[in-house]
Amino acid sequence: NHSVPIAARVTVSKDESRDFMAVFPDLVRDITTVTKAYNCSDAAKWFAQVLQYNVPRGKKNRGILTVLTYKNLVPTQDLTPENIKLAQYLGWCVEMLQSFFIISDDVMDNSTTRRGQPCWHKVENVGLTAINDALMIENAMYAILKKHFSHLDCYVALMELFHEITYITTCGQSLDQLNSNRCVSEFTMENYKAIVENKTAYYSFYLPFALALHLAGYKDAEAFRQSKTILLEMGNFFQVQDDFLDCFGNPEVTGKIGTDIQDNKCSWLAVVAMQRANVEQKQIMVDCYGKEEPAKVERVKELYKELGLPSTYAIFEEESYNMIKTHIQQTSRGVPHQTFLQILNKIYQRDS
Amino acid sequence: NHSVPIAARVTVSKDESRDFMAVFPDLVRDITTVTKAYNCSDAAKWFAQVLQYNVPRGKKNRGILTVLTYKNLVPTQDLTPENIKLAQYLGWCVEMLQSFFIISDDVMDNSTTRRGQPCWHKVENVGLTAINDALMIENAMYAILKKHFSHLDCYVALMELFHEITYITTCGQSLDQLNSNRCVSEFTMENYKAIVENKTAYYSFYLPFALALHLAGYKDAEAFRQSKTILLEMGNFFQVQDDFLDCFGNPEVTGKIGTDIQDNKCSWLAVVAMQRANVEQKQIMVDCYGKEEPAKVERVKELYKELGLPSTYAIFEEESYNMIKTHIQQTSRGVPHQTFLQILNKIYQRDS
Ligand SMILES: [Mg+2]
Ligand SMILES: [Mg+2]
Ligand SMILES: [Mg+2]
Ligand SMILES: [Mg+2]
Ligand SMILES: [Mg+2]
Ligand SMILES: [Mg+2]
Repeated sequence: NHSVPIAARVTVSKDESRDFMAVFPDLVRDITTVTKAYNCSDAAKWFAQVLQYNVPRGKKNRGILTVLTYKNLVPTQDLTPENIKLAQYLGWCVEMLQSFFIISDDVMDNSTTRRGQPCWHKVENVGLTAINDALMIENAMYAILKKHFSHLDCYVALMELFHEITYITTCGQSLDQLNSNRCVSEFTMENYKAIVENKTAYYSFYLPFALALHLAGYKDAEAFRQSKTILLEMGNFFQVQDDFLDCFGNPEVTGKIGTDIQDNKCSWLAVVAMQRANVEQKQIMVDCYGKEEPAKVERVKELYKELGLPSTYAIFEEESYNMIKTHIQQTSRGVPHQTFLQILNKIYQRDS
Repeated sequence: NHSVPIAARVTVSKDESRDFMAVFPDLVRDITTVTKAYNCSDAAKWFAQVLQYNVPRGKKNRGILTVLTYKNLVPTQDLTPENIKLAQYLGWCVEMLQSFFIISDDVMDNSTTRRGQPCWHKVENVGLTAINDALMIENAMYAILKKHFSHLDCYVALMELFHEITYITTCGQSLDQLNSNRCVSEFTMENYKAIVENKTAYYSFYLPFALALHLAGYKDAEAFRQSKTILLEMGNFFQVQDDFLDCFGNPEVTGKIGTDIQDNKCSWLAVVAMQRANVEQKQIMVDCYGKEEPAKVERVKELYKELGLPSTYAIFEEESYNMIKTHIQQTSRGVPHQTFLQILNKIYQRDS
């Protein structure tokens, strides 16, 4: 049964999630105070609704990952309520960044639903104002950073990290857009990896971890480099799994019905299928991939099975998991291995 | 003749503009280098086109204002080629911020042309990708700041200033969007001022000046506060003038045909008209404002004249100019008065 992959077996505890959620009203209050100070009461009221609707949705894995990593990195005596709250604020900054990306992406893709509710731009009286709302979320994040972190040594590093990761993610989006009009015959594994790494892995995996490192006082550039390698590998694994489940997952488990084939997505399955296909099979992909007709979608799925992709995936999953474990064991710069291992077993939870 | 207001009589020198433009290729090169380092050659190539099409357009008043202010603030012996280049880079950061706002605003307003060429999202093969392109410009700006300014004392202040001004501008956009569906009978001067200040004045006037103050080494918070008051007053004046010329300007001078009446814009003319109108005149505004029919547009223009708005504007312009001069003379924190006066006479050039 391929519908529950290795990494999705462990989940974030309810307590952790509740503690994290308890900080959200403070975040909204901080932002409302800042906004009102600019003679913008009407905008502040509107923006509070924007935040409520968009930010505390989904599993909040990225935000909680920030907090869990921080807790793993610092000695118990440093786990004061104040420090934990700082880690939670950083976690909410990651969630704000994610909301900003999601709202913009949904406008660009003209999507209709997200996490079981209408996309923000599809809500009545919102429309393209969603673009500005996303920008407000992105930049309110820096007001939160300033309010709670500007007295700390790591403040500049935090700001620079958010700038860099935001830029990388927009570069990944750009690659994705450039690729989306391409024919399946032009998909390559190199392109696939570049899109996944930039569009998803940096902000979903490296960012929460690196924020926790900074808050915990790590300064060694080599510790960041080693962590980045591991977390980007996890991010790649996560996306391959997501692509696999889009086609072969059980919708009752994943909570969504995949449309990557219809959408002409440069998915791991399509890339590997093209690598393994003979001339006739390649022609089937060209004829049937990215089309709405159910018979064509079914033909692609059949071809994936003929090419043995489910077992290729199972092997990839196992190998990737083991490779990451090896890389974790090779780290040498004082980041506890347990910190990585916990993520390997926690974050590979279904989300998106 | 009201089509050339007081402040539009002086223009930026051709030399200044050419020197500023000469730095643009370096900016594109810096950004391309950064982008390629993330395995994003295709995105780097695309983004170079985005920058070329969108950033070095228009009069670049905000960028050049940054440079001119800096030159006015520092003693001659500090005007080294290196320092001037830093001021020019900061000026280009303002121009990048402006491009980011404009591209997004044109998508939200579904505009078709800008500065005599198609809006970026109307260019073939662009469409809603324009949203991501705008985000790339916004965040590439911080890569420029890091590369050229991270060794300076003022680095944190520069980043915080860009964060704050970006956030304020998105708040102004939000106010504008919330107001745009309102009936003309609900327009108020209070709302008008809040929209203008947040949406336009902060980033167009205060930002360039404050950047120059930081680069010149000013640290006195009171000097920034006094400057802010004066520059926001200039920004308000600028927008009132823009609104006036939209209706009463000579298209051969302004280079554009106004549509504020058709677009139901909360313009200075509409606000003042509603303040002065009797019951019948208010009804004319309610019936005719925000409508496409030429006869209705004409009726509004007639009403503006009946209410004496051209002479009200002339008086406002004179008074506003004098008030700003008085405030300049009252500043006391070491910012040379000439710095403000030069802007008063330079920047009130027609732009948009
Ligand atoms: Mg999407
Ligand atoms: Mg997309
Ligand atoms: Mg997917
Ligand atoms: Mg517009
Ligand atoms: Mg607009
Ligand atoms: Mg106008």
